[in-house]
Amino acid sequence: MSRIPVTILGATGVVGQRFVQRLAQHPQFRIQHLAASERSAGRAYADACSWRIEGEAYGGLGDRVLVAGGPDTAFSPVVFSALDSAPAAELEPAFARAGALVFSNASAFRMEADVPLLVPEVNPEHLALLAVQRERRGWTGGILCNPNCTATVLVMALAPLQAAFGIEAVMMTSLQAISGAGYPGVASLDILGNVVPFIRNEEEKVEEETPKLLGLLEGGRVRSAPLVISALCHRVPVVDGHTEAVSVRLRGNPSVAQVREALAAWKPLPQALGLPTAPVVPIRLHTAEDRPQVRRDVEQDGGMSVHVGRIRACPLLGIKFSLLGHNTHRGAAGGSLLNAELALHQGWIR
Amino acid sequence: MSRIPVTILGATGVVGQRFVQRLAQHPQFRIQHLAASERSAGRAYADACSWRIEGEAYGGLGDRVLVAGGPDTAFSPVVFSALDSAPAAELEPAFARAGALVFSNASAFRMEADVPLLVPEVNPEHLALLAVQRERRGWTGGILCNPNCTATVLVMALAPLQAAFGIEAVMMTSLQAISGAGYPGVASLDILGNVVPFIRNEEEKVEEETPKLLGLLEGGRVRSAPLVISALCHRVPVVDGHTEAVSVRLRGNPSVAQVREALAAWKPLPQALGLPTAPVVPIRLHTAEDRPQVRRDVEQDGGMSVHVGRIRACPLLGIKFSLLGHNTHRGAAGGSLLNAELALHQGWIR
Amino acid sequence: MSRIPVTILGATGVVGQRFVQRLAQHPQFRIQHLAASERSAGRAYADACSWRIEGEAYGGLGDRVLVAGGPDTAFSPVVFSALDSAPAAELEPAFARAGALVFSNASAFRMEADVPLLVPEVNPEHLALLAVQRERRGWTGGILCNPNCTATVLVMALAPLQAAFGIEAVMMTSLQAISGAGYPGVASLDILGNVVPFIRNEEEKVEEETPKLLGLLEGGRVRSAPLVISALCHRVPVVDGHTEAVSVRLRGNPSVAQVREALAAWKPLPQALGLPTAPVVPIRLHTAEDRPQVRRDVEQDGGMSVHVGRIRACPLLGIKFSLLGHNTHRGAAGGSLLNAELALHQGWIR
Amino acid sequence: MSRIPVTILGATGVVGQRFVQRLAQHPQFRIQHLAASERSAGRAYADACSWRIEGEAYGGLGDRVLVAGGPDTAFSPVVFSALDSAPAAELEPAFARAGALVFSNASAFRMEADVPLLVPEVNPEHLALLAVQRERRGWTGGILCNPNCTATVLVMALAPLQAAFGIEAVMMTSLQAISGAGYPGVASLDILGNVVPFIRNEEEKVEEETPKLLGLLEGGRVRSAPLVISALCHRVPVVDGHTEAVSVRLRGNPSVAQVREALAAWKPLPQALGLPTAPVVPIRLHTAEDRPQVRRDVEQDGGMSVHVGRIRACPLLGIKFSLLGHNTHRGAAGGSLLNAELALHQGWIR
Repeated sequence: MSRIPVTILGATGVVGQRFVQRLAQHPQFRIQHLAASERSAGRAYADACSWRIEGEAYGGLGDRVLVAGGPDTAFSPVVFSALDSAPAAELEPAFARAGALVFSNASAFRMEADVPLLVPEVNPEHLALLAVQRERRGWTGGILCNPNCTATVLVMALAPLQAAFGIEAVMMTSLQAISGAGYPGVASLDILGNVVPFIRNEEEKVEEETPKLLGLLEGGRVRSAPLVISALCHRVPVVDGHTEAVSVRLRGNPSVAQVREALAAWKPLPQALGLPTAPVVPIRLHTAEDRPQVRRDVEQDGGMSVHVGRIRACPLLGIKFSLLGHNTHRGAAGGSLLNAELALHQGWIR
Repeated sequence: MSRIPVTILGATGVVGQRFVQRLAQHPQFRIQHLAASERSAGRAYADACSWRIEGEAYGGLGDRVLVAGGPDTAFSPVVFSALDSAPAAELEPAFARAGALVFSNASAFRMEADVPLLVPEVNPEHLALLAVQRERRGWTGGILCNPNCTATVLVMALAPLQAAFGIEAVMMTSLQAISGAGYPGVASLDILGNVVPFIRNEEEKVEEETPKLLGLLEGGRVRSAPLVISALCHRVPVVDGHTEAVSVRLRGNPSVAQVREALAAWKPLPQALGLPTAPVVPIRLHTAEDRPQVRRDVEQDGGMSVHVGRIRACPLLGIKFSLLGHNTHRGAAGGSLLNAELALHQGWIR
Repeated sequence: MSRIPVTILGATGVVGQRFVQRLAQHPQFRIQHLAASERSAGRAYADACSWRIEGEAYGGLGDRVLVAGGPDTAFSPVVFSALDSAPAAELEPAFARAGALVFSNASAFRMEADVPLLVPEVNPEHLALLAVQRERRGWTGGILCNPNCTATVLVMALAPLQAAFGIEAVMMTSLQAISGAGYPGVASLDILGNVVPFIRNEEEKVEEETPKLLGLLEGGRVRSAPLVISALCHRVPVVDGHTEAVSVRLRGNPSVAQVREALAAWKPLPQALGLPTAPVVPIRLHTAEDRPQVRRDVEQDGGMSVHVGRIRACPLLGIKFSLLGHNTHRGAAGGSLLNAELALHQGWIR
Repeated sequence: MSRIPVTILGATGVVGQRFVQRLAQHPQFRIQHLAASERSAGRAYADACSWRIEGEAYGGLGDRVLVAGGPDTAFSPVVFSALDSAPAAELEPAFARAGALVFSNASAFRMEADVPLLVPEVNPEHLALLAVQRERRGWTGGILCNPNCTATVLVMALAPLQAAFGIEAVMMTSLQAISGAGYPGVASLDILGNVVPFIRNEEEKVEEETPKLLGLLEGGRVRSAPLVISALCHRVPVVDGHTEAVSVRLRGNPSVAQVREALAAWKPLPQALGLPTAPVVPIRLHTAEDRPQVRRDVEQDGGMSVHVGRIRACPLLGIKFSLLGHNTHRGAAGGSLLNAELALHQGWIR
């Protein structure tokens, strides 16, 4: 099978660079267009931005000439969008209308009723919303979103608990990496030797996206999971990887051993299908009393698995544990890519 | 009034150094003995240890000769103990038996039924337990403990809420500074660019000390406050100051404004008495959406006030907020010293 | 004597905030105008910027209304400029022409032949260049510059060596703090756990300013000191304070003891005059084998002294040592202020 | 060819872990013994230590039982020693006497006249010293040392300059990672937000090892290169990778372009031989004005190449540049392993 041509919107940003890095060698997709702002269009990729992540600079595509980010100049049947919310609100529908399937990292459309908010291990069946979206909007393409990075990591651990027991309540306190804010993003004067107990809109996103992700698709719409969730978000001086302290109240009050078993036994669809970007083990369970640790664990499995450790009794909600995941791999570019692989497998991309 | 002679046990450690720093200029106490291990006894203070905190090295007492830490060699009527738990378990009772009032940072005796676990703003009336202790143990001196640093900061914010509304449940996730582990303490390889989701015994201490601190003294014993509390503790790459993400369920479901008012209106005893080490404002309320921040705020008021910001509704428990306090000032040496000032004022030291 | 009214140009930036902090309580000057860009003019200081440094927010002047930064709107007889180079090139001469004495942190005029580049401990006699400047330019005011922060710290240690021995060559490798780049300045993604071996124009500034600072004023011009200097500048993850590794070749090949004695014996003019901002001891000599250390030492003396340690033989140039100074106190706002105090004492301000 | 059995001495430390990681999959060697102190002998590898580096924990050998580190219990024909200097001084000769070829990271024997101090790209001919050593000491095995990590990185860049021009003088200021001090090593209280301008014995090692490494083997002994070298060493808050600011005086005063060409054209022996651990490109030349940067560049090529950037004129010595290399790969375990691969190729291992 020849590889499907794709466009990367916002290729010069940190998440855009992760897309380039991951797509440079992908077995199913090949990069057709690197798109950026009008200001950068026409320039070589290496000239228009600084490569901010580890690994081969520019994914080997430093000479590629950037194109402006509209469907006239940058159309491909598959589009990966690393745009900020405001340009995404304008450009992503234009591509969808033109027939492209847009896999978006932006928050602009995540909570629209007819837009799949997708984590393939968690709610692959939500992909079917795309049919509703096309019918309602008259599009031949469509928009599929991956969630906020913190919510993505969270639902990876919650999904097997929801399936095994049902979740009544979640308290999640995050310790988030600076790369989540892009580049230049967080000023070093704000974070060196410091903790910032605030990330704009982050708590709101986690609190609204999580119930949708864990919801059921019924009659062409998602019925949000009836759980109560509270998020408390912090920025800490860590480069990549979000640590989350999670407490949950589960139906039937399972024991620590039962929770551990439910997480260990989880076998979601992407792993069964062997999608290229899916980690073989979606949840890495740690037994050392002081793990997972972000600097030591988060790069494992290409940053696509999440890590759970310190599962223990919570005096207040029943169970608490430590959770870790990679915000720009699993929580951004890798997540979008996995969505596209699922869509391809399910026949939504021709 | 001539100043009361005091002994510092464990003077060479980080908390011991804080004691020296704070007592070097104290209006009511003067350092009579700097005590250390047998190995260091007989050496000059500056030779026996490295000064690890900011400010004048050795508090100007670098030439002072260290004595061994027993009541025979180091007796004073007032003793400040910066010992670890194991030596504290042995030495502190020896001093108490010899007639000294021991103000201890160690965890060894905190949960003993007849030992006051004291934060002067929170439970000054618990000091009366000392009479029970003396009678039961036949001591002429006694042991008074200040709580774990994380618990200390927490109860400073909880006390006015307990008084105004009553607390039913607390969820507390901490982001703790490395200085809490002493010196050498946390290895840099373990914490640089990292988060460690585990601090040995820390969650247990917070969960058991908090209810005792907020309890009522009745009939010669403390009845612990009937609140449910869960603690999730993390080490982060910050030098001094613990950040705590707190959610609480309060009786009567007060509004954010009511909670803010209760914190602002709090006027505890040490402030009314004007004790030397008491901060004029015990809780600094922040209105900026991204404060308090540890590097920017924690040194204010000599590290003796705590900081509260981002008071907001918690979907799960009702109210959540961000809390910050200094672990080696308020949470250790400054806390012990304030206990001694209260004890002096109440007539327990002659 | 009533305090002299002053204007702070660029009051919202990090160096501007240091000016506010230092001038809020100054015995000789009082803040008349806080000036900022057109965009911020008319807004309260606290609304127009975020206070980025420790200590009382906005120096207590959060309610002060900002004015636009031209001589029509913001004239005072003394002006402290925290402007960037481009606006400084335009605004500072306008104030000088209008009769103000401008104490500038910017690099725009430092190397002009008739502009004093001044560190009061090092070359107070260069102040006399002001007469040349006024005559040549027809100004009633004038511009006086303090040097680049790295050069300032360096010449504080070189001046006594130049006086005692004469300097032939200097090799200086810096490890510079992030605050030197202002706010937002260095992106956290660029510096967390990293070293950046490049700071734009920094090596050039050190290499050209140092000989001028150590030069002699003869016949109305400065003859640069005939030393060879090489600078290698790095950014490191430190908040405040520049560490410099210095090797020097001195005339007559003095011993380590002789160098130490020359540094210890140094008694420059500002200390003799007792200028308010002058540190009592301009060079703090350290004997511990691992000092000075930036986080532990740099705040001493209000950040106005520099620190020298590890004086030892250099196999290549003769003497090497470790040097430390505060980049935003001594190297910026504090340095400008000391310049103004000297100018006031010498009768240049009426 | 069957793989040669090897012993790792000091397998539980950070450098020992790097040996395990690199040898777990090596094409020419297989791990026969993991040796540790008496205290750890008999315990499983995973029980006796904490895995402190990234990648698969314990190199997959967590179940391997540790043996005590003497030739009776842990003999293999090839021994990799990650011991500290004191135990190395005792144990390494015992293995050499018993017939093992010991590849040592310790400093104990580096400066012995009959011990090869080896970097295969730099002085492979020094390997012949082994014959002298065997004859003089009556050993059937032998000891080969790799240099101090900072010196190793330095000579990788100096060797082509020595070959092309001849080096007269070197000034080297280092900014070194914490992993160089092992585990627990540097206390976080000493390095977080700090710079320590002192590493015990480090400057001495660089200054004495570098001339030996660049020396010529003549008549059974190494004549040190007649260059003057001065080292100024610092610890900075970086996990892995040493940055070095280097100035050199070269014979004939070559231009920046000539120096760049000499570095680019370098084709040392291990690359010609294709030794498994040799990086294809030994020196990565950077053209970006702000590279190399340790966090972004040091892991390239498995940490075995060094990085040079910012080659520019030095007003004092002629040429200056920025240098970067990995202290525990190239500067420790990887360096030893490459030494062993060279020895194997040259027929010293049977």
